[in-house]
Amino acid sequence: MSPVSPVAPARFSREEYARRLTKTRQAMAAAGLDLLIVTDPSNMNWLTGYDGWSFYVHQGVVLPIDEDPLWFGRGQDANGARLTSWLPEARIVAYPDHYVQSTERHPKQVLAGLLRDQGWGTRRIGVEMDNYYFSAAAYHTLLRELPDARFQDATGLVNWQRAVKSDTELTYMRRAARIVDAMHARIRDVIEPGMRKNDLVAEIYDAALRGTAEFGGDYAAIVPLVASGVEASAPHLTWTDQPLRPNEGTFFEIAGCYRRYHCPLSRTVYLGRPPQHFLDAEKAVQEGMEAGLEKAYAGNTCEDVANAFFAVLRRHGIEKDNRTGYPIGISYPPDWGERTMSLRPGDRTVLEPNMTFHFMTGLWMDTWGFEITESIVIGERGPEILADTPRELVVKD
Amino acid sequence: MSPVSPVAPARFSREEYARRLTKTRQAMAAAGLDLLIVTDPSNMNWLTGYDGWSFYVHQGVVLPIDEDPLWFGRGQDANGARLTSWLPEARIVAYPDHYVQSTERHPKQVLAGLLRDQGWGTRRIGVEMDNYYFSAAAYHTLLRELPDARFQDATGLVNWQRAVKSDTELTYMRRAARIVDAMHARIRDVIEPGMRKNDLVAEIYDAALRGTAEFGGDYAAIVPLVASGVEASAPHLTWTDQPLRPNEGTFFEIAGCYRRYHCPLSRTVYLGRPPQHFLDAEKAVQEGMEAGLEKAYAGNTCEDVANAFFAVLRRHGIEKDNRTGYPIGISYPPDWGERTMSLRPGDRTVLEPNMTFHFMTGLWMDTWGFEITESIVIGERGPEILADTPRELVVKD
Repeated sequence: MSPVSPVAPARFSREEYARRLTKTRQAMAAAGLDLLIVTDPSNMNWLTGYDGWSFYVHQGVVLPIDEDPLWFGRGQDANGARLTSWLPEARIVAYPDHYVQSTERHPKQVLAGLLRDQGWGTRRIGVEMDNYYFSAAAYHTLLRELPDARFQDATGLVNWQRAVKSDTELTYMRRAARIVDAMHARIRDVIEPGMRKNDLVAEIYDAALRGTAEFGGDYAAIVPLVASGVEASAPHLTWTDQPLRPNEGTFFEIAGCYRRYHCPLSRTVYLGRPPQHFLDAEKAVQEGMEAGLEKAYAGNTCEDVANAFFAVLRRHGIEKDNRTGYPIGISYPPDWGERTMSLRPGDRTVLEPNMTFHFMTGLWMDTWGFEITESIVIGERGPEILADTPRELVVKD
Repeated sequence: MSPVSPVAPARFSREEYARRLTKTRQAMAAAGLDLLIVTDPSNMNWLTGYDGWSFYVHQGVVLPIDEDPLWFGRGQDANGARLTSWLPEARIVAYPDHYVQSTERHPKQVLAGLLRDQGWGTRRIGVEMDNYYFSAAAYHTLLRELPDARFQDATGLVNWQRAVKSDTELTYMRRAARIVDAMHARIRDVIEPGMRKNDLVAEIYDAALRGTAEFGGDYAAIVPLVASGVEASAPHLTWTDQPLRPNEGTFFEIAGCYRRYHCPLSRTVYLGRPPQHFLDAEKAVQEGMEAGLEKAYAGNTCEDVANAFFAVLRRHGIEKDNRTGYPIGISYPPDWGERTMSLRPGDRTVLEPNMTFHFMTGLWMDTWGFEITESIVIGERGPEILADTPRELVVKD
């Protein structure tokens, strides 16, 4: 096939990609690595710009410490790499289709051959051991095919470099925030008892994808989580085609997405007169949120934010036994979190300016659930709240 | 937490789940396994009914050959298992939240402890070595924590049991077909030059989610793949907010989804007067599709279908160097295929009645792409075509 060239505008400058490579190589050097195999699609995109729904087959970016990265993937996806990444033709390497989902061959055999051919077969190689797209079979194929390499766990190595956002990244996340504002406004406008849940989800997607007149929406890495009533006691149920019932609460855990950058935001709607425990939860979460936000500035730690929030919750008699937030930014399914820090006791990571978090203050109780959350940018003195959606329980009586 | 009970109607009878367990246990016995750890969310759902977007953390279903399965997952997701699976309270086991995305602890340590406690620490254990949700770290944690167990690759073991669909499954897939028909009808209605791609995708989602008056749509395991012009040379690009251009072809690889069951279907739209190579591609694919469909009956093999299709393509001077289909059914991101058989030369799997395939006859050429596909049910004498969408290049001039 003859090489094709990008038709869409580049998402980041070449200088920004160069800075990302430099940061990543410094982390590699500190970890004693001279080669990194990146399989997390978010990390692949962040390093090279590659953007496509091809992560259901084996692929990756190979980053030597001393040369430009290589994109490695399925033959039919090489044009996608040509169209979306900044990599030149010589750095795009494809494997034949009979390696796809074969019981006899594994794509990582081709990758190992590539590494040997490049003289990298004895390197100290970092692999993302706990990533969705680095299976046990992928690792064992590499171990078998590269007996002279030394492998080392590099889970999260690139993710950590993504923590502090650039100006362009923040611009994209602010656009994602405008989109999630539109999504929550739509819910507030149209929700009513009797409406089928799937029709409400259609409205949410409509707002998410249409975005604004200036920019349109991308797909979020998680579909809308929209559980009602007792099902809201479970945080990760999706939807059915059953109608919304009166006198039930429904939480909406959704994100706006622009060019793969996310702004998650949750709100809860009660159809009818909310019972006292919803009003109590609203009060506790709002007060706890304020307490946490007051600690969300550079120099403090992740646990400072979490402890401030949990202290208020306990004062209100609510025990939340899960973390209360995580970093956000560029992402692909199945998770819009960055999988590095967590807002929880024991995480003493120091906050830096332009780190971005979903302050995930959701409550999933015995027989009900409640979510009012915010996505934030860490500042020198305090956080920027990305969304403009009113921070309140929405009541439609 | 006190146990909650399901509020939605069960998706399958207990008898159907029992048959699935029996089939799976027969396959386990044939493979010499007395315990299976299932991490593929599609397999988890197929065996237990569990349905939630929680696969971004470690979880699984443990199936002993001689006892009912156990659901294993994150604490906050246990209510989801109570609400969606048929498992009794005693078979739902959760791990604490500080194991989630921790650098010091791994959820598979808790799973290993559970297995030891049950006296299963010396069993012959099947694991899905090449599944997205069974990372290299997950495997190595199990190896370390269960030194007396014997591990064996069981990738695809459950997937293979899913190949032949039950009557209820076929009902769900036929509903998914009605949904994908509505999606393509919507595209045909609204597409025009100047329309932003993201606005067109909003229309596709609207049709997908609203479904029909009788049943609503679920989310497909892959987002719409909708590349135009030169970008259609790459099969897996998603969308931007740029307007559709006149005199370009756009393929729409989309699926209707009902209760996690998929009916994928691709069509291509040309805005303007299509150039000769589009008309030639249409003719070749239609003729090849007919030739393949003629071979798609019980007793023939996967490669019989593929060879018939490829022979016609070659006669038209078109070389397609990737497989031309795969089995479909229940699925979760990132793939709606079942990852067992492939319609390609060399795959001699014998077709059985009620196997279901996406006959994926897409062409991705140097600088353009073309997709007209069908989803089919294998019959004794020939296939049932699931969708009713006209099998043609859509031209809007």
